[in-house]
Amino acid sequence: MRTAVDLPRAYRLLNHGPTVLVSAAHGGRRNIMAAAWNMALDFAPPKVAVVIDKSTWTRELVEASGQFALNVPCRAQAAATLALGQRSGRDLPAEQDKFAAHGLSHFAASRIDAPLLDGCVAWLECRVLDEVHNQQKYDLFIGEVVAAWADSRVFADGHWRIGPETDPALHTLHYVAGGHFFAIGDAFEAQPLPAPQGYS
Amino acid sequence: MRTAVDLPRAYRLLNHGPTVLVSAAHGGRRNIMAAAWNMALDFAPPKVAVVIDKSTWTRELVEASGQFALNVPCRAQAAATLALGQRSGRDLPAEQDKFAAHGLSHFAASRIDAPLLDGCVAWLECRVLDEVHNQQKYDLFIGEVVAAWADSRVFADGHWRIGPETDPALHTLHYVAGGHFFAIGDAFEAQPLPAPQGYS
Repeated sequence: MRTAVDLPRAYRLLNHGPTVLVSAAHGGRRNIMAAAWNMALDFAPPKVAVVIDKSTWTRELVEASGQFALNVPCRAQAAATLALGQRSGRDLPAEQDKFAAHGLSHFAASRIDAPLLDGCVAWLECRVLDEVHNQQKYDLFIGEVVAAWADSRVFADGHWRIGPETDPALHTLHYVAGGHFFAIGDAFEAQPLPAPQGYS
Repeated sequence: MRTAVDLPRAYRLLNHGPTVLVSAAHGGRRNIMAAAWNMALDFAPPKVAVVIDKSTWTRELVEASGQFALNVPCRAQAAATLALGQRSGRDLPAEQDKFAAHGLSHFAASRIDAPLLDGCVAWLECRVLDEVHNQQKYDLFIGEVVAAWADSRVFADGHWRIGPETDPALHTLHYVAGGHFFAIGDAFEAQPLPAPQGYS
């Protein structure tokens, strides 16, 4: 079940470094692509950073609409994530889109126009903050998170619940290169090293 | 054993989203802090982005020296990572530093002055690219990676070797919040969804 995530806790959806899928829409066209290079950038209002290459069709839609969504895929979606990272929506006929072409369903976001991919475990709806220099020089987009959602089977009450009791197919994906991924592993609690002498 | 990582493959050290420790030195002082908000930003020359809060002592050293290192800690270092994230080097007497205070040893980088933390599984030596607006507005630092290293028990020939045969204590750390971490989990290969009809 999809549940809303409090905005000040939205950073936790990305904090452990999952690969994301960036989706966007404009003028009746929509697209989605994979992006391993993403991170949280602030707590409140929450911000994110993501690298979106100049060659991508998604980028055109992000720049035209001023909006994007970060969809956090799970292990069950590794094959889709790879396909969405390797193929461009630009290579499809105008009447098709990458979702339909791959048989992937989507649903409407609450505060932006970008489509959200079904089957993901978290979603962050973002508005682009206008930083033309970063976009041009580094392909770096900064967005403010205006709504966030998660699959309550693995994220609830502001915390990831991934563990031995959850379906491994729902664990987050962490892309390396080629067809090579990691799934997230053991959750554990640590105590900090004791405060040494000398600390005020 | 530490082994040099070819610069065009340095992005792979961060691609799967590990938490890092940022270290820096200037004028005989050194420090190290935890940073979950980091990502690769380019392949060649490799660049990285990392968020370094204005309140930190590490930031002063990074700004003064124009250099930093990203150290990739492993599960064995969770308690140290938490301590280095929760305590400021500023709260120590001038003759002490966070390494010595916590009993953590370090070694010299090859191309920058920042100390590298022993026991990590990868290290990226970086020079700050001058982007004052990003630093001031977003606490966002962009660095060019000038040298990279990895522990050959878990990263060799440009690939992570983490798997069932490697020591779990050497698996990368993925921080969430509080004392809550994930360790990286299963490595696996995926094949992309078949190319649908309509792809040119």
